[in-house]
Amino acid sequence: MTTPTPVYLDCDTGVDDAVALAYLLASPAIDLVGIGTVSGNTSAAQAARNTLDLLQLAGRGDIPVAIGAHDHLSHGFSGGAPHVHGDNGIGGVILPRATREPEASTAVELLIELSHRFSGRLHVLTIGPVTNIALALAADPALPERIAGVTTMGGAAVVPGNITPVAEANIFNDPEAAAVLLAADWDVTLVPLDVTMDHTLSEADRGALLTSADPFTRAIGELLDHYFDFYLGEYGIRTCALHDPLAAILAAGAVGLTRAPRVPVVVDTSAGPGRGQTIADLRGQRMGVRDHAGSRIRVVLETDAAITPHLVETLLAVGTPSLRS
Amino acid sequence: MTTPTPVYLDCDTGVDDAVALAYLLASPAIDLVGIGTVSGNTSAAQAARNTLDLLQLAGRGDIPVAIGAHDHLSHGFSGGAPHVHGDNGIGGVILPRATREPEASTAVELLIELSHRFSGRLHVLTIGPVTNIALALAADPALPERIAGVTTMGGAAVVPGNITPVAEANIFNDPEAAAVLLAADWDVTLVPLDVTMDHTLSEADRGALLTSADPFTRAIGELLDHYFDFYLGEYGIRTCALHDPLAAILAAGAVGLTRAPRVPVVVDTSAGPGRGQTIADLRGQRMGVRDHAGSRIRVVLETDAAITPHLVETLLAVGTPSLRS
Repeated sequence: MTTPTPVYLDCDTGVDDAVALAYLLASPAIDLVGIGTVSGNTSAAQAARNTLDLLQLAGRGDIPVAIGAHDHLSHGFSGGAPHVHGDNGIGGVILPRATREPEASTAVELLIELSHRFSGRLHVLTIGPVTNIALALAADPALPERIAGVTTMGGAAVVPGNITPVAEANIFNDPEAAAVLLAADWDVTLVPLDVTMDHTLSEADRGALLTSADPFTRAIGELLDHYFDFYLGEYGIRTCALHDPLAAILAAGAVGLTRAPRVPVVVDTSAGPGRGQTIADLRGQRMGVRDHAGSRIRVVLETDAAITPHLVETLLAVGTPSLRS
Repeated sequence: MTTPTPVYLDCDTGVDDAVALAYLLASPAIDLVGIGTVSGNTSAAQAARNTLDLLQLAGRGDIPVAIGAHDHLSHGFSGGAPHVHGDNGIGGVILPRATREPEASTAVELLIELSHRFSGRLHVLTIGPVTNIALALAADPALPERIAGVTTMGGAAVVPGNITPVAEANIFNDPEAAAVLLAADWDVTLVPLDVTMDHTLSEADRGALLTSADPFTRAIGELLDHYFDFYLGEYGIRTCALHDPLAAILAAGAVGLTRAPRVPVVVDTSAGPGRGQTIADLRGQRMGVRDHAGSRIRVVLETDAAITPHLVETLLAVGTPSLRS
């Protein structure tokens, strides 16, 4: 087995953030070295609360959690998405309250500190609006030199958005920050709705999580209940899209990519009807979109396998004594 | 047989405009009562020249042709697309010069005059930038009351554009005019790249046109030669997309629609990277996009049949004595 990749996670926990977190903790390919939170699905402070509570339930009180940006670059926090993620961000489930508090440092400070400690190896995984990343780049323009790569869940390339007809929530919540992230000189794997909506969890999968011997895994099954209700309107059945878990699985390198061209991507930061759209240049797709020389942004459009079996298997393995100490 | 629909055609002739024109002349469902030109594939004046020459070759010197807008609402004519349509707009083919000249009236005046003469029955078919239509609406806000319907070739809903990553040429050439057309109170059938790129003409089809006994039909086969070269880069074979012919065939009601939701469509008229994009609200597509109450814009995404056999058959029928007098 190769050395696990040190990962800084930036999240707005969030039901699917919680599932992604569970996967990152369980994956042998990942060493989760720090977590920053940001407002998105819920407030940055609530996201930190949720993350701390989940980590304590998982017996991982060692991973630092720092609160990041409450407001976005161009506007204040809008109040989150309680109709999707519940009033507390995690489907209304009340978890045992963690005994520890967030770090005294900010998410930006934590990210920069980790980038020095794991210089050249640290991977940045974002599953919320990327306000913290833009602020970190502003605070330390040399940051990309110390980062091995960035995986960002966000955007919609050739499918409709989920906030406007063309904009996805993470990018729409802070288009200016996303533009900064995508313009920086590092390798970015963008994980848009085009591919995340293709991967779903079934009621049977959720039922399997609920039977786990591990209380953390069971909690994941519980907090998915409210989230499944929301997706009834999208898919016509109780299920959920695996937006953030897919990004986590890609960061772990656990599935391959069959269509993921490196192409120019710009974010629409205008005040027009396209605001928040990730405009990827996918022209020429009839003959297979070719990589554009010079683009460091890989847009994931298709994986080589369904991720759901791997995800469920990985989460269920946590209940066995060999994995969770 | 029902009475043919009186049609005003607004075009920027253009190779595929010429094919659409040939279809409209041959279709028994259409009574082509007037043509206005606009700058796009070539200048409005050259488009009129091409249209007059084609009509004379077809023995239809009776159809009035009026020159429309040379410049667009917010900017001047950009010079057209000679790499696609040839230096003269019709693939470099030199046609016998028509003996008549364009009307003294403008395209706007012709459209308004026809809307009175065929009040309540006139169908407007646009296959270029829609500058003339916006100008006509400005000149006569009551115009929609006298129009039975509008069919517009333009835009890209969920496929990439052909001018920018998100914008199609007709709309990109005059986004402000497209916004005016789509906001007017009439039924619009929008025919975007999503569906036009699915319909192509083969080298064998072109060969069949070249064997026609009719000189006009043979000319259509000839001017497609240059156009096929351009599409080699798009499809990997010599072929062409049937953008404008599909719009003409839909105006004739010759094929049905399997996916054509009535949804809100706005045009991005910002100066941002999305300028010229037709933003159609196709959210909910996993369960089948439903018609939005109040939207009068039908976005054609799929037809119930391939149009190419019908198109070729219709054009080849012109060579028989029974059809062309």
